[in-house]
Amino acid sequence: MKQVYSYSQLFFCLILCWNNLKAQEKPKYLDAEQSDPVKMGWMVGSPPQADRIARFDDGSFFQFPALRWSVAHMRQLMPTINVSRGLGNSVALITNDTKKIDDVKFVSLGETKPITWKESLQKVYADGVIVMHHGKIVYEKYFGALTPDGQHGAMSVTKSFTGTLGIMLVKEGLIDTTKLVSHYIPELKNSAFGDATVRQVMDMTTALQFSEDYADPNAEIWKFSAAGNPLPKPKDYDGPKTYYEYLPTVKKNGVHGEAFGYKTVNSDVLGWIIARVTGKTINEVLSEKIWRKLGVEQDAYYSVDAVGTPFAGGGLNLGLRDMARFGQLILNNGKSGTQQIIPKAAIDDIRKGGSKKAFAKGGYPLLKGWSYRDMWWITNNDHGAFCARGVHGQVVYVDPKADMVIVRFASNPLASNAVNDPYSLPAYDAVAKYLLTIK
Amino acid sequence: MKQVYSYSQLFFCLILCWNNLKAQEKPKYLDAEQSDPVKMGWMVGSPPQADRIARFDDGSFFQFPALRWSVAHMRQLMPTINVSRGLGNSVALITNDTKKIDDVKFVSLGETKPITWKESLQKVYADGVIVMHHGKIVYEKYFGALTPDGQHGAMSVTKSFTGTLGIMLVKEGLIDTTKLVSHYIPELKNSAFGDATVRQVMDMTTALQFSEDYADPNAEIWKFSAAGNPLPKPKDYDGPKTYYEYLPTVKKNGVHGEAFGYKTVNSDVLGWIIARVTGKTINEVLSEKIWRKLGVEQDAYYSVDAVGTPFAGGGLNLGLRDMARFGQLILNNGKSGTQQIIPKAAIDDIRKGGSKKAFAKGGYPLLKGWSYRDMWWITNNDHGAFCARGVHGQVVYVDPKADMVIVRFASNPLASNAVNDPYSLPAYDAVAKYLLTIK
Repeated sequence: MKQVYSYSQLFFCLILCWNNLKAQEKPKYLDAEQSDPVKMGWMVGSPPQADRIARFDDGSFFQFPALRWSVAHMRQLMPTINVSRGLGNSVALITNDTKKIDDVKFVSLGETKPITWKESLQKVYADGVIVMHHGKIVYEKYFGALTPDGQHGAMSVTKSFTGTLGIMLVKEGLIDTTKLVSHYIPELKNSAFGDATVRQVMDMTTALQFSEDYADPNAEIWKFSAAGNPLPKPKDYDGPKTYYEYLPTVKKNGVHGEAFGYKTVNSDVLGWIIARVTGKTINEVLSEKIWRKLGVEQDAYYSVDAVGTPFAGGGLNLGLRDMARFGQLILNNGKSGTQQIIPKAAIDDIRKGGSKKAFAKGGYPLLKGWSYRDMWWITNNDHGAFCARGVHGQVVYVDPKADMVIVRFASNPLASNAVNDPYSLPAYDAVAKYLLTIK
Repeated sequence: MKQVYSYSQLFFCLILCWNNLKAQEKPKYLDAEQSDPVKMGWMVGSPPQADRIARFDDGSFFQFPALRWSVAHMRQLMPTINVSRGLGNSVALITNDTKKIDDVKFVSLGETKPITWKESLQKVYADGVIVMHHGKIVYEKYFGALTPDGQHGAMSVTKSFTGTLGIMLVKEGLIDTTKLVSHYIPELKNSAFGDATVRQVMDMTTALQFSEDYADPNAEIWKFSAAGNPLPKPKDYDGPKTYYEYLPTVKKNGVHGEAFGYKTVNSDVLGWIIARVTGKTINEVLSEKIWRKLGVEQDAYYSVDAVGTPFAGGGLNLGLRDMARFGQLILNNGKSGTQQIIPKAAIDDIRKGGSKKAFAKGGYPLLKGWSYRDMWWITNNDHGAFCARGVHGQVVYVDPKADMVIVRFASNPLASNAVNDPYSLPAYDAVAKYLLTIK
C-alpha cells in the first residue's frame, strides 16, 4: 500500500476538501507576491529549471508554492474530460469598472485594524477575482499564473455544480429525493448509502464512517484518493481501483439525517445518480443543461479516474469569467437573458437552505447559523447570501439583496476555508454594503 | 526496462509515426461500421462495461477497436496542454453543400473496379471529413466517436504544424536554417543533431541511428516513447525521462543531407529550437501566431511528457473544422480575410518542395516524385498539391489548382499511410477533378 500513498498523498489535496480541518497555526509561507508562480519561473523554459518543475507522479505539483502554478494548469498534469460549450459564440460580459472596490475597508475576523479589499486579496493568495453588480462586471483582476483565457481548479465548488444539476433533475422528475440511494444505484445497497435518501446525500446529512483527517494515514480519505488516482496502481495494490469501486465500500456510522457531515463522497454518489438516471457522464450533463446554453467563453473540464469517471466531488476546472456567468445565472434565479436555463424552483430549493440544527453539529464555528442545501452553503444572513466553497480559497458568493456575485480563484498554501474566511466573509459583506450604498 | 515497455508499447502508436512501415497483409479486422465505437458502446455507462473500457495505463486504449474511441478522446487518457484560441468569437465557415461528392468515383491503387468517395470513407475508417472548395465547405461528415465540437488526434499532421511555425520563425529572422542545430540547442552538441543544419532537420535529411521498426524491441523508437511517457517511470528505469533528455542521446548514422529519412525526432528537435528561440512552449507559439488569429472554434491541445513538454512530433489534437480552417489558411498563402497570419514567403518555401533525389531514397514506393519540405509532403503533381499526413489516416490535403482543401480524421486499424493511400490519393484527385469540372 505504501507506494499508493507515495504518489497520491498530495493528489488528495486536489481531489478532496478538508474544510472540516481546524484552522491551524500558520507556518511561515512565502507571501502572495513572493510566491507568484510567474515571477518564480515555475514550468518556464525548455526544459524548465529542475527546481521549478511541478510533477504529478511524485505529488510535488500540489506542494506550495508549486501549487500556485498547478491550480491553473491541472490538465497539464493529469487526464481530464471536457465540458463542451459547443461551437457557438459567447454572450458578452459587460464591464462597468468604475467602482472603488479596491479601497473598501473591513475588519477581518479576530482582528481590530481594518484592511482594504485590495490587501485582503494578497492575504488569501487570490489568483483571480470578479465582482458582478446588477449583472455587470464591476471588478476583474488576475494574479499569478491565471489569465482570463486560462482555467483554474474549482476544488469543492464542483460540489455545488453537482448539487445544482441534481436539483434540476429533481425538478424535471428524473430524481425523487425521498427515494433511497439504492433505488438508483443498486451497487450501493450494502454500503452506508444503501438506506440513505437522496435528500440526505444532497444535504450531506448521511452518517458515514469516512474520515477526512489527513493527518491519519488510515483515514478513509486516503483510500478514496488512491482509488480515484488515474495513475497505474502498484502491483501489490488490492483496493478499489475507481471511484465507483470505492463508493460501495463506505460504511455507516450513526443515524442518517441528524447531523451535517461534510464528506466529499456524498457528491460523488450524487454524481453517480445523475449519471445513472441520464445515461450520461456528469460533464456531458453539465454541458447539455448549462454550458452550451450560458454563452460561456471556454470549455470547462473535470479530472477523471482511470476509467474516465469525472470527479464530481472536486474535479471541475473552468475559466473565472465563466464561473462569474454561472454565479450570475444562479443569482438570476436560473435565467440568462430570456432563457430559463435552470428552473426557478431549483434555485428556490437551494435558497431555502437546509437544517440549521443539523448544520450546527457539523463543526464550523465560523459559520454560525448557516446551513447546507443541494451542496450549496447557505449563510442565512439578512442578504439571503449563499455560496459554493472550495479548498485553497475558491468561491462563488451570491448576494441577492446587493444584487452581487463574487467569484474567486485562489491558491492559499493552507487548504481549509477556515483560514480564508476571516479575510473573506467580512470582505464580501463590506463590498455588498458598498455596492448597496452607491446604487 | 521491461516494465517501461509494458505500458508504453501501445503508447508509442500515439506518439510516433510509422509511415515508413511497409504495407502489410491485412489481418481480419472489424470493418468501419462494425467497429463504430458508439455502436459498440466504448466508454458508455457508469461505469462502462468491463470489456468496453479504454485504459491508458495498460495501453489498451490504442488497440483496435478501442483505438476508434480513443483517438477522439485523447485528453481523457493523458495529461495535455492547451493551444488557446483566446476568448474572441470565431469566424464562421460558410457551407455550400450542394455538390455530389459522395458519388464521385475513382479506382483505388492496385484495383480495377471503381468505388465511390462515400465507399472509400469506410475503407479508411474515416472519423470525419471536410472538403473546402473556393473557401467554402462543400462536404462535411462525421462518423464514430467524433463530433463537430470534439477533438481528434492529428498524429503526424502535428509535424506540419511544427514545420509551419519553424518556417514562420525563419522568415521572421529568429531561426537561420543554415546554422547548426547545436547553435540553438547546445545540449544537442554531442548527438547526431550536433552537426546537422536546421534545414536538414526541417526536411528530415538528417542521418540518424533511429529505428522506427516497431517489430524490433530494441528499436530506438521504444526508448523515445518510454522517455516521453508521462506516467511514472518504474523504479529500475534508468533511461531518459523526458523528450529533452532523450534527444541528446540520438546517434548519427551516415551523412546528413543525402537521403530523406522520416524520423519523428526531427520534429521534436525543431520544436525544441522553436521553444528556445521564442522562450515559449510550442503550444503557446501556435496559439499566439495562428490559433488566436484564425477565428477557430475550439482550443486545440498537445499531449505532454512528465515535465510538461508538448509532443511536437505527434501530440496535437484539434477540431476537424479548425483543421479545415488551417488548411484553408495554407491554401490562401497564409492569409485569412484581410489578415496575413503566415508570411507568404513561408508558404512559398513549403510549396517549392525539397530534394526529390533525397526523397527517392526514403522508401516510399507509392509516393513517386514527391518531396518533403518544412515537414510537409509535396506531391509535385500538376495541381501543385501538398499535404500533412499522420498515422491511421489523418490528413490535410491542399490542392491549389482545384482551390480545394481536404481534411480528414480517421482510425484505421493499421497505422501506415501505405494502407490508406490507395483509397486516398486517387480519391483526392478525383474530387479535385470533379470540383474543377463543375466550377
